[in-house]
Amino acid sequence: MSKPIYTSSADAEAAFYDALARSDLDKMMSVWAEDDEVVCIHPGGPRLVGLAGIREIWRQMMGNGVRLGVEVSQAVVTGNALMAVHSVFERISIDEARRRSPLIAATNVYLRGALGWRMVMHHASPVPEGNPVADLAPRIVH
Amino acid sequence: MSKPIYTSSADAEAAFYDALARSDLDKMMSVWAEDDEVVCIHPGGPRLVGLAGIREIWRQMMGNGVRLGVEVSQAVVTGNALMAVHSVFERISIDEARRRSPLIAATNVYLRGALGWRMVMHHASPVPEGNPVADLAPRIVH
Repeated sequence: MSKPIYTSSADAEAAFYDALARSDLDKMMSVWAEDDEVVCIHPGGPRLVGLAGIREIWRQMMGNGVRLGVEVSQAVVTGNALMAVHSVFERISIDEARRRSPLIAATNVYLRGALGWRMVMHHASPVPEGNPVADLAPRIVH
Repeated sequence: MSKPIYTSSADAEAAFYDALARSDLDKMMSVWAEDDEVVCIHPGGPRLVGLAGIREIWRQMMGNGVRLGVEVSQAVVTGNALMAVHSVFERISIDEARRRSPLIAATNVYLRGALGWRMVMHHASPVPEGNPVADLAPRIVH
């Protein structure tokens, strides 16, 4: 089965979070670039470099076919014609758990290549509840 | 005073860590792109968006002119002609503190524009000691 071609970083990101919510490992890996230097860091986890390790961690996370609740919000996007950086907040909840899941900041970087837009970096880490967006100076509220 | 032009992402990254070690706020800010969507996340801290907030957090960190020990290691770099993603490990130690500082994974993203290479993202978070690089499968050791 040939991999889908994502025609924008937004398409690739939608596929990434859909794959996560559905525990769809093949779809998840279709989002990643076939590059030795792809990097994935889960909250509190080690740095994973390369597709084999990244596939393995997702396989472990998805292995039991769990359905996840995935909320993505407050995207800040920058980039150019060949790359995009998406900064988002995530809340990932397991199955029907009603308790509030921790707030995670994720940095997702996509490159545009011959096969469309693909992820080269996912870096996720917890941010403080209550003040996830900095409130250091009035000027930064925009 | 005009800002320096960094001719590669490696130059920009060297300036970033040199500015951090010297608590040189002007040099630090010379590394950042003049873009509303620049993002900075310090370990355990909130997401900062925009130059004003980013400058303010660095000013607070550097305000007392502290000299920092900065060790950067194990860079993994990917990108293309217009952007670069650097994944590195950092150890930042304060003054002459001899105790071992926590190991931090940092994602640094640079864009190439008319004024050279500039940082658009710094996302830093702690990684586990002892196993910072994943050891999930033999294939990923390369």
